Amino acid sequence: MANPLRNIRIVLVRPIYGGNLGAVCRAMKNMGIYDLAVVSPHPELDMSEARQRAYHAGDILEKRHQYESLAAAVADCALVAGTSARGGLYRAHARAPREWAPRLIEAASANRVALVFGTEDKGLSNEELALCTQIIRIPSSRAYSSLNLSHAVIICCYEMFLAAGRYRHAGEKSPEAACELRERMFAMWRETLLEIGFMKDDKARHMMMGLRRVLSRGPLSENDVQILMGIARQARWAANNPPVRRERRKSSEGD
Amino acid sequence: MANPLRNIRIVLVRPIYGGNLGAVCRAMKNMGIYDLAVVSPHPELDMSEARQRAYHAGDILEKRHQYESLAAAVADCALVAGTSARGGLYRAHARAPREWAPRLIEAASANRVALVFGTEDKGLSNEELALCTQIIRIPSSRAYSSLNLSHAVIICCYEMFLAAGRYRHAGEKSPEAACELRERMFAMWRETLLEIGFMKDDKARHMMMGLRRVLSRGPLSENDVQILMGIARQARWAANNPPVRRERRKSSEGD
Repeated sequence: MANPLRNIRIVLVRPIYGGNLGAVCRAMKNMGIYDLAVVSPHPELDMSEARQRAYHAGDILEKRHQYESLAAAVADCALVAGTSARGGLYRAHARAPREWAPRLIEAASANRVALVFGTEDKGLSNEELALCTQIIRIPSSRAYSSLNLSHAVIICCYEMFLAAGRYRHAGEKSPEAACELRERMFAMWRETLLEIGFMKDDKARHMMMGLRRVLSRGPLSENDVQILMGIARQARWAANNPPVRRERRKSSEGD
Repeated sequence: MANPLRNIRIVLVRPIYGGNLGAVCRAMKNMGIYDLAVVSPHPELDMSEARQRAYHAGDILEKRHQYESLAAAVADCALVAGTSARGGLYRAHARAPREWAPRLIEAASANRVALVFGTEDKGLSNEELALCTQIIRIPSSRAYSSLNLSHAVIICCYEMFLAAGRYRHAGEKSPEAACELRERMFAMWRETLLEIGFMKDDKARHMMMGLRRVLSRGPLSENDVQILMGIARQARWAANNPPVRRERRKSSEGD
């Protein structure tokens, strides 16, 4: 079996400080993780500080990929695990990194998996969390729960490293759906649910979050996504074709 | 029982960089550990950098105690766990922090316990390791095993925090749906998928197995089931109410 750690991508969204970027590279290399993506770094991020703090992990820093959006950075990832220090509406199903680790490593044995970290001061936006299939909350003291960025990264990477050492892969069937395909499915469902009057525009975001949560509880294969897209497509069609016409088509097919 | 974390002391031996000292304070406070001892810090250690990196953990930095030797810093400690990245003579009984954590927390429920970290470039000397009752080696990649000082500290503190059981899993607010409710949902979906022409009777069993599989991958809460039943109900309604009538209802609701 391939090393699942090689399928794990660390994604930093809008990092501000070069020191943190460098420290993240070192943390990754310490834990055998090499794929770094950076989304819209701060224009004044200090690259010389990053190089200094990366220490012997300058290779990871140099080979990083840069993206303009989180969606682009995770387009090819089956699972997208976002970190959040806050509680609240869309974060109720957050779990500790140790709880998610076996699931993430299992997926990473066959597919690309992203661990996503928000900007130093504000974390990830609700829109960014919507892209995540898992929410990670690192256990910490109530007195001061907000970790330094590279500290959050090394704890998550450390848990992946340990889980990878223990995990024995069972055997794969249909590949897990990547982010891009899943997002097409959610967009299709959104249109359908508006069309059939299940929700109105002002509730759409909230309802879609609920649906995203339900469909992110376990692996979602490409086959599964095809089924779900088929249902959405058909529900929309049926809503726009009166029962009489449907009956007629049904009976003519029966001929 | 008293909080064992309050009996844990972090000891830094000859730290060089103020940034690391500050980052260690933040890491400690994140994990509910407050007692910091510093042995012979470098004379040019940058205290203003330390204060900056400590961020909201300046209290720990200010209250630190300073010692001239490791022996003095751990004189009142029952257990002394030293960290080492290297193997070798005095390090053969090194174990991972997760392995030592229960033992250290047990001791810390009644006695003071020290976690000792060496200087950034060379770690602890053999003489210093001799003072240690436990040796901790943090699991890491062979390609680059040496962690940044504050990274080593936060991993050890994180393991102590978890072992102390201070973390309370947030979990889902809504209870998991029981079999009966789930089955009502699947029956409703079956009717809807037949009604909207997504499947015919002879394929219904096969398609429903697919849908069951998708929705059984992870926990499904009662709230989730309510959402899914609502969608099925609405899709069926929409399929039986032509677009014109729906529009009329929509606009009258908007009044």
